[in-house]
Amino acid sequence: MTLPIGSLDHSSEFPLYRQLYASIRSLIEKGRIPKGGRLPATRELAGQLGLNRATISAAYELLEAEGLISGHVGRGSFVAGGARRAGVNWRENVGSSAPSSGAPASAPLASFSSSRPSELLFPLDEFRETCDDVLASGEAQAILQLGSPAGYAPLRRYLLEQARAEGVARESDDILITSGCQQAFHLLQSILVRAGDNVLLEDPVYPGMKNVFQRSGARLTAIPVGADGLDLHAFERAASEHPRLIAVTSNFQNPTGATFRLGARRSLLEIAQASGVIVIENDIYGALVYEGDPLPSIKQLDASGDTILLRSFSKIAFPGLRVGWVIGPRPLIERLTEVKQWTDLHTDQLSQAILLRFAQSGRLERHRQRMLAAGRERLAAVMDACRRFLPPEVEFTHPRGGMSLWLRLPEPLDAGELLPRAEREGVTYLPGKYFAVSRPETRGLRISFASMAPGQIRSGIAVLGRIFKNELERVRAQSPLAEAPAMV
Amino acid sequence: MTLPIGSLDHSSEFPLYRQLYASIRSLIEKGRIPKGGRLPATRELAGQLGLNRATISAAYELLEAEGLISGHVGRGSFVAGGARRAGVNWRENVGSSAPSSGAPASAPLASFSSSRPSELLFPLDEFRETCDDVLASGEAQAILQLGSPAGYAPLRRYLLEQARAEGVARESDDILITSGCQQAFHLLQSILVRAGDNVLLEDPVYPGMKNVFQRSGARLTAIPVGADGLDLHAFERAASEHPRLIAVTSNFQNPTGATFRLGARRSLLEIAQASGVIVIENDIYGALVYEGDPLPSIKQLDASGDTILLRSFSKIAFPGLRVGWVIGPRPLIERLTEVKQWTDLHTDQLSQAILLRFAQSGRLERHRQRMLAAGRERLAAVMDACRRFLPPEVEFTHPRGGMSLWLRLPEPLDAGELLPRAEREGVTYLPGKYFAVSRPETRGLRISFASMAPGQIRSGIAVLGRIFKNELERVRAQSPLAEAPAMV
Repeated sequence: MTLPIGSLDHSSEFPLYRQLYASIRSLIEKGRIPKGGRLPATRELAGQLGLNRATISAAYELLEAEGLISGHVGRGSFVAGGARRAGVNWRENVGSSAPSSGAPASAPLASFSSSRPSELLFPLDEFRETCDDVLASGEAQAILQLGSPAGYAPLRRYLLEQARAEGVARESDDILITSGCQQAFHLLQSILVRAGDNVLLEDPVYPGMKNVFQRSGARLTAIPVGADGLDLHAFERAASEHPRLIAVTSNFQNPTGATFRLGARRSLLEIAQASGVIVIENDIYGALVYEGDPLPSIKQLDASGDTILLRSFSKIAFPGLRVGWVIGPRPLIERLTEVKQWTDLHTDQLSQAILLRFAQSGRLERHRQRMLAAGRERLAAVMDACRRFLPPEVEFTHPRGGMSLWLRLPEPLDAGELLPRAEREGVTYLPGKYFAVSRPETRGLRISFASMAPGQIRSGIAVLGRIFKNELERVRAQSPLAEAPAMV
Repeated sequence: MTLPIGSLDHSSEFPLYRQLYASIRSLIEKGRIPKGGRLPATRELAGQLGLNRATISAAYELLEAEGLISGHVGRGSFVAGGARRAGVNWRENVGSSAPSSGAPASAPLASFSSSRPSELLFPLDEFRETCDDVLASGEAQAILQLGSPAGYAPLRRYLLEQARAEGVARESDDILITSGCQQAFHLLQSILVRAGDNVLLEDPVYPGMKNVFQRSGARLTAIPVGADGLDLHAFERAASEHPRLIAVTSNFQNPTGATFRLGARRSLLEIAQASGVIVIENDIYGALVYEGDPLPSIKQLDASGDTILLRSFSKIAFPGLRVGWVIGPRPLIERLTEVKQWTDLHTDQLSQAILLRFAQSGRLERHRQRMLAAGRERLAAVMDACRRFLPPEVEFTHPRGGMSLWLRLPEPLDAGELLPRAEREGVTYLPGKYFAVSRPETRGLRISFASMAPGQIRSGIAVLGRIFKNELERVRAQSPLAEAPAMV
């Protein structure tokens, strides 16, 4: 049989097997796969969906663990007769969740799980015009030919001049174009970090940053991030052990949305310079300021010129085009460029040329203004919805820009355990465990609001508010029992 | 002063400082910078050309070492008065070279140094149509949005189906889209090779392949490549020590142009399987067969399914779009995909979608047929010119496709030492030392013929033939002295 599985979101940080699991669960719950019905073999479904068999198996295992299907060696997997196996959290969840509102789980009500711009806001006509301009220019042949490891020269010049005009780049700085910021981190890791080196990371942090340093065998030291950014006292203590580097997000940190205050930026530089710690400033959200004025970057404040700055087009414009850049001291950039060459020769040149033209023609800035207007509205919607719909015990940050905020549930709620309940009502988010460096914050969760319209944001937060409230009431109703004296 | 330096070729394997050196030398020799004239400061020229200062310094050092300029601390670098410092090879070269034909060195007569398709053959109109199709489709938004680490799903399906239809991919295989083949090697190295592992490489070999494994700390074992490909006896000896892997080019190897015969492909597989060596088949030139029939790939012949196959669009179509792919056993591809995600999230999606459309619309195959026609003509021209113009003592391979052939000069000629003489006459090539794994073949050099028209190929080979002949005559005139009995 062919399962009517909608398209899965490959770019979500939310694993495919969980998405698939949620889709199949929804089909079972809606009776679209009958009780006793046979699921396709893993190989067959893998072929149908263009996924790995391991992904299918993981989804089936989860369904089986929850008693929704049962597997018989050699015969296949069958939808269970409604009788569920003992699975403590699951049963409790089912027991306490409100009846489904009828919203199909395969067409989510609100997905708060991806920190990216909405494709509905992409200015497609302007993008097409930009492509036409690039391909009609005398440069077309050179653009489609092999390019330079350092990047497309006109783009490098444009970005470097802009950074110099802004006061961000100095004479002693140079620039490397990378295939997005993730690659910039990868290249920096590969030349700066050796196994056993001590690397300081924000905690919680975007998993891509943790993974890239973890893979190099570095020892990761977590520096907590609060509503105002990095905990400077913790950084000072960690810096006294002369770690190799610190990677820090100055604006609208992923996942907390926190922004580092001006004074704190200066203090961070002082501490870093006194202890010889390399500072990598990740500033991919800095152009998305919805409230207040932009602050000077750490790089700009750094008179020594040693700070390494990472920026990208991906959070404003078209993330499917992988173009980011690193600005830093020339000897570092030279070494990075060499490593870049043996990593992938150079970044895709058509995309570099298109984004340059998009910027130079003024279209990027016009688009950014539209993104700011949309972002401002969306931020207002999510803040308003959090205040209105979340139980007062839930804490949340108030970002001034970017794409995400951070919720902290009251004890003893667990954001990971509550997720399946939210998914059943068509709402997704990423629980804190995905972002943990050292302390898995089971009560934390990330709400990425930038890719949805205000109405959708409000409906989604309302659902979460109800689930959190119900769960709080449930555990409170139980707690007197738990607090009763033990029977002896 | 602003030097009238033409644009340098960033994508050439020929270092920028040498290109710059050649340009400035030509300006000096043509009197366009007067004797005693001051060269721009390195910083100034670096800014003007968008290059690193180190590149400028290296070019100046070379000019100074050859007595063409002299530097005075604090004052700058000045064009020397024509008096050259003692520089053994240089003086000899100048002494014996024919007077310049008047061809400006800044507009080379023939550049045999880059193994890439000619941009003059790019079908720009068809490329524009393809872009328009992609951006007019309902998929445009999704293409510009963040994608999947494994690659753009429709492209993956297309390539995998094609590989299955061809018999190259099995049911147990899967595919990962990479940012060109260089990245495929980088990813394979990062999951398969640990420091100290023994890796077998062809010798001579494309430097990108050597570098990627060298950087992982692998122990490189060189397996000589002759006119018929890899030396199987040497492979068998090396395989008995159970190395980790062998990277082998089945068709039109870079730099030798050698193709592995069918029987040799089977023998290689037998040896590899008996000793448990992983086979990585690099087949980026395989679609460019100019003479004879294509042979089945090693991957296709491998009943075990274990061979890992690398292919790419770059040698046929638009190398500025960085899209290649790896086909291999599913567990390997899954692991590679995971590493790919933390390396650069995913390959540029616009380029993937354009190349898919270019292929599906039949334009790629039509373009390939034109490339085959041009390649056939160019191969015939280079072979004919080699036979006519090279002294009979020069050996050369006869490739049946691809982009390069390999010349071996007679003793005691040194291809690296003769290069400046060729450059002065507007002809470039890459000397053997760039391709050496263990034995620097000073007599070898690579001639990449695919990017030039037949007339240009003939003129270039004629120049090289004359230089090699003159040098042979010169050393022969000297040799009776060298062979005279020592005076006692």
